[in-house]
Amino acid sequence: MKIPTQIIVFVLAFVLAIISGIILIPLLKKFKFGQTIRDDGPKTHLVKQGIPTMGGFIFLIPVTIICGYYALNDNDMAALLLTTLGFGLIGFIDDYLKIKRRNKDGLKPKQKMLGLLAVSACFTAYVVTMTNMGEKTVVPFIGIDNPITVPIVIFIPFCIFILLAYSNAVNLTDGLDGLAGSVTMIILVFFTVVAMLNEEWNSIKLFCAILAGGCLGFLTFNLHPAKVIMGDVGSLALGGAVAAVSILLQMPLILVIAGMVYFIENMSVILQVAYFKKTGKRIFRMAPIHHHFELMGWGETKIVIIFILVTVVFCGIAFFALR
Amino acid sequence: MKIPTQIIVFVLAFVLAIISGIILIPLLKKFKFGQTIRDDGPKTHLVKQGIPTMGGFIFLIPVTIICGYYALNDNDMAALLLTTLGFGLIGFIDDYLKIKRRNKDGLKPKQKMLGLLAVSACFTAYVVTMTNMGEKTVVPFIGIDNPITVPIVIFIPFCIFILLAYSNAVNLTDGLDGLAGSVTMIILVFFTVVAMLNEEWNSIKLFCAILAGGCLGFLTFNLHPAKVIMGDVGSLALGGAVAAVSILLQMPLILVIAGMVYFIENMSVILQVAYFKKTGKRIFRMAPIHHHFELMGWGETKIVIIFILVTVVFCGIAFFALR
Repeated sequence: MKIPTQIIVFVLAFVLAIISGIILIPLLKKFKFGQTIRDDGPKTHLVKQGIPTMGGFIFLIPVTIICGYYALNDNDMAALLLTTLGFGLIGFIDDYLKIKRRNKDGLKPKQKMLGLLAVSACFTAYVVTMTNMGEKTVVPFIGIDNPITVPIVIFIPFCIFILLAYSNAVNLTDGLDGLAGSVTMIILVFFTVVAMLNEEWNSIKLFCAILAGGCLGFLTFNLHPAKVIMGDVGSLALGGAVAAVSILLQMPLILVIAGMVYFIENMSVILQVAYFKKTGKRIFRMAPIHHHFELMGWGETKIVIIFILVTVVFCGIAFFALR
Repeated sequence: MKIPTQIIVFVLAFVLAIISGIILIPLLKKFKFGQTIRDDGPKTHLVKQGIPTMGGFIFLIPVTIICGYYALNDNDMAALLLTTLGFGLIGFIDDYLKIKRRNKDGLKPKQKMLGLLAVSACFTAYVVTMTNMGEKTVVPFIGIDNPITVPIVIFIPFCIFILLAYSNAVNLTDGLDGLAGSVTMIILVFFTVVAMLNEEWNSIKLFCAILAGGCLGFLTFNLHPAKVIMGDVGSLALGGAVAAVSILLQMPLILVIAGMVYFIENMSVILQVAYFKKTGKRIFRMAPIHHHFELMGWGETKIVIIFILVTVVFCGIAFFALR
């Protein structure tokens, strides 16, 4: 029996991520790339001061090596890799400035947004001009075989919005040890399985399997008690990656279901801010919503496991929505 | 848009499990159904002394109510429910005797095995005589559409073996807060999705969704730090349930993949015992293998999350094995 390629690359990425972690974490500590914790989180998080950040490199290095090998002869793989690295680069600059300036401010919001917009526009341009997927999107519960065609003047801003929204959402989700990494890994496994349905999606399938393996390797260092934090370099890269994958699969609307945790995290912040501006009161004790549960007295790991299981259930619903 | 039934029953079971937990946990404490921790586990587990056990009722009550409603007109549902409750009953007697006698010994191994054997034989008899599934089993990587037919003299002991093996395996897996519940919930979500592939499996699909919802509700009390432990009443019931589901789906061999964590936990004990008998040395610091990782210094919740993610990956592989 031949072992399927997606399993081989998953294991390879996992092993390379472990090796990267073993080498990188002491270096990050040495160069004092310790996390300066946002001063707007729960006070218990102040103990995390000093845990090295920029751990995103632990999965980005194996992804760059393995996907880079395939990308030489594969446009989709190259586009996915470059988009991931593009988002990661903006996150890296942000992380780096935060550490250099020894405070929580990195890039100015406008600078960051402009950078993310540029990468999103490049990927969208690739999708529209270089692929033959058409401007299509699968509608949940209508079925995978009947994607609707979206007029290009809507499709382009829609793609850019999805990329920006998910990089931001994963960034917000990344607030508890192992949360963003685990949830994203499960969604990548889901997309790996979905991409098996069609031979044309072979490179997307491999990309998802590689990134999932990298995430699992990273998590061995990032789960509570975290020895390293992924930083913006990690969270923006992961958000960009899942969004780009969903666009190539014509499934950004399916990602809304499978990635319900991202959606809830993002909406909790939007609702909190909007409600506070209007009434001066708060809906949640603290946003993003994982901090709300923490302040309710749930342990950090309990929230992480519940969010993981919710993701598993919503990936199940997303499967159903594809039929 | 009509909300699919499996989602409704999942949510209903989840809510009923939460209500059961809120009512039951104080009662279990009152009647001193506290856990007497196996004295062969790590010493750190002694703090768990006094946490109420028999928490399995928290998911068995909603399952009995909802599945019971369907079982009135549905043979498969009735068989699955009765098998689950049968295994649960033996676990309950075991739990009850342990508490009454105030020591770790419940039923004698022979008595317990005989009880499990009786329930397994009843379910197997149902499968062979009352269903039209034939004596078939899907072979992984050969495809769901080409199940092989097994001679009945092999099929009967094979089914009984699967039921006994999985009730034992889930029982062994139930050694860390939330571990057995989470892993089983994910496998039930997996089987819910698989059962959507064929209209004939409608009752199996609903059963899996109901039990998964019950597990999620139970986990809100059982995740670290656990307020209640499922006990043998829970673990034997869950093991019997997943095994019975896999047999009705003709997929016990697929369960070996999806339930890789059960398999590894079980094998770690078998190997440890066999190796110790032969050489007087140990392979693992302690078996089942989750205690080995604990003694290596991994935190309890880290092991649980890793085992959960491993289950997600193997459910992905199991999907692939079905094609």
